[in-house]
Amino acid sequence: MAGIRDVAKKANVAASTVSRALNNSGYVSQSAREKIKKAVEELDYIPDTWLRNLYQQKSAVVGVIINSLEYPYFATVTRFIENKLAENGYSMMLCATQNSKVRERIFFDMLKRGQIDGIIAEYLLLDDSEYQHIQRPVVTLDRHLRDIPLVCSDHHSGGRLAAEHLIQKGCQKILYIEDNSSYLSSTPSYQSCLAFKETLIQAGIKPIPCKVNWKEEEKDYFHSFATKILSLHSDIDAIFAADIPAMALFNEATRRNIAIPEQLKIVAYDGSPWLNQTLRQLTCIEQPFEKLAEKSVEVISALIENKEITNNVSVIPVKFIQGESS
Amino acid sequence: MAGIRDVAKKANVAASTVSRALNNSGYVSQSAREKIKKAVEELDYIPDTWLRNLYQQKSAVVGVIINSLEYPYFATVTRFIENKLAENGYSMMLCATQNSKVRERIFFDMLKRGQIDGIIAEYLLLDDSEYQHIQRPVVTLDRHLRDIPLVCSDHHSGGRLAAEHLIQKGCQKILYIEDNSSYLSSTPSYQSCLAFKETLIQAGIKPIPCKVNWKEEEKDYFHSFATKILSLHSDIDAIFAADIPAMALFNEATRRNIAIPEQLKIVAYDGSPWLNQTLRQLTCIEQPFEKLAEKSVEVISALIENKEITNNVSVIPVKFIQGESS
Repeated sequence: MAGIRDVAKKANVAASTVSRALNNSGYVSQSAREKIKKAVEELDYIPDTWLRNLYQQKSAVVGVIINSLEYPYFATVTRFIENKLAENGYSMMLCATQNSKVRERIFFDMLKRGQIDGIIAEYLLLDDSEYQHIQRPVVTLDRHLRDIPLVCSDHHSGGRLAAEHLIQKGCQKILYIEDNSSYLSSTPSYQSCLAFKETLIQAGIKPIPCKVNWKEEEKDYFHSFATKILSLHSDIDAIFAADIPAMALFNEATRRNIAIPEQLKIVAYDGSPWLNQTLRQLTCIEQPFEKLAEKSVEVISALIENKEITNNVSVIPVKFIQGESS
Repeated sequence: MAGIRDVAKKANVAASTVSRALNNSGYVSQSAREKIKKAVEELDYIPDTWLRNLYQQKSAVVGVIINSLEYPYFATVTRFIENKLAENGYSMMLCATQNSKVRERIFFDMLKRGQIDGIIAEYLLLDDSEYQHIQRPVVTLDRHLRDIPLVCSDHHSGGRLAAEHLIQKGCQKILYIEDNSSYLSSTPSYQSCLAFKETLIQAGIKPIPCKVNWKEEEKDYFHSFATKILSLHSDIDAIFAADIPAMALFNEATRRNIAIPEQLKIVAYDGSPWLNQTLRQLTCIEQPFEKLAEKSVEVISALIENKEITNNVSVIPVKFIQGESS
């Protein structure tokens, strides 16, 4: 089997550089990283992190809890998490609870039994009290749990940036789409809604709230939702909504010959790659998908390896992307 | 802890019905199924299949190999597989190789070590010879491997249905998008391309082939691809392409004010839920995503439990869906 020295030779870099690159510790230039990656593949080299995990007591498995891959946000973050876990020598066990508490409980049971080493929880349903006695590595993504490390986007800035943009564009009748569940209002991402409202109110604009039922699973739900909104609120000049309802509203407005962005401006929240499928690129607040994944994998690895966590809360900046819808 | 009798009482059905529903054996009406599901959730009942697997020698884990969740086909099938596995008491370990042979090899190594009980392989990169000595439960989805059970769609009918539809609509200058890699041409899904070509040629129409490079990862790849195609082939009257290029071509044609379906007809292949994001619903050949998942989970469970497999190849029908693009 090829060793680290063979990889170094093939990539034409020092063995210590290969080691830094494979262990993700210290600086390695992008070009060296790419040469190393290529050499690893060509030599079928199995990195030490993998072997180490395979032969240690650990399962080398991290569990990831989401609601469903059906949602662009979960699908995108989970894709990056799987990738980052692999880079760190872990396999990913996926649990899409689809709102089943039983499934979530079975998953935490696997953690207790050591069948998995840690959990990155992107979606949680149990009562907070059930998480207090776990005493095993858990990181939450976008969900507050007492005493458990949290990774999330800077949703407050996200909401504020969207509002400031629409104010600056002169919008007055602004509708925003809120989740209808009590679940979302307990998550950090709800901050985007609050900051959006606050910023508008401070500028003397009263936003129009509108509820969406995320759990609705019919194929045509968002289509009929968009039809209803645009019929009920024919006088609005701007909309702030999550990716999927934003796309449905953009499509329905275009079908009705409402001029975008002249008559109606749309800002989407999340900016997942799915947004690329629309006729015009939508303006959006983009989540730092890859960085959220990177950070949560960094934290869960540290917890599994009993390293100290310096920061119990990691807030990662979001980005405003100017598209053609505003 | 609640038992099967408590579930039966709460759901107001016989205990044997609950047992059939939870083990997926024998007939259970849809309404009974829903009542049982509700009762299971309300009572936090952990089904026997889960407990059985947890306490047996088995890992109760099935590995799933894909390329990346980035592609709508993989994201959709994988979502259903995870769900079906859970119904059968298995957890899903996901391995998105992103074309890394090393990652795939590590995964098969886990199978050999018993860290996972079986593999559903949707994407494979190693030489066929490497799979011959595995002697452990493996099912492939859309990939021929000697002596290993295969589940796939009826791609031959898919290609033929698309061609017949366009012939019937009077199209003459028909372009089809082919994968540029040697990988795809070795898979059952390549049959859709072959059957599409064949059917047209038999009707006296010579289709225009066009290559697409699936591995291209730039955000704008499909946009510039669509621009190039429509500039180079301004006289075509129909296109047959996979979901993502079909959506990009639909969007670019609409931006150019090409009347769809009058001037140009588009038929998409796969019909993943992502197609719902376009301005008009595209006509498509829909893959039986849920049934593919169901069948591959059925086969892998049987292999893990040493049951006999009656059919080494399962071909599942596809569906023609008339949309607004043809």
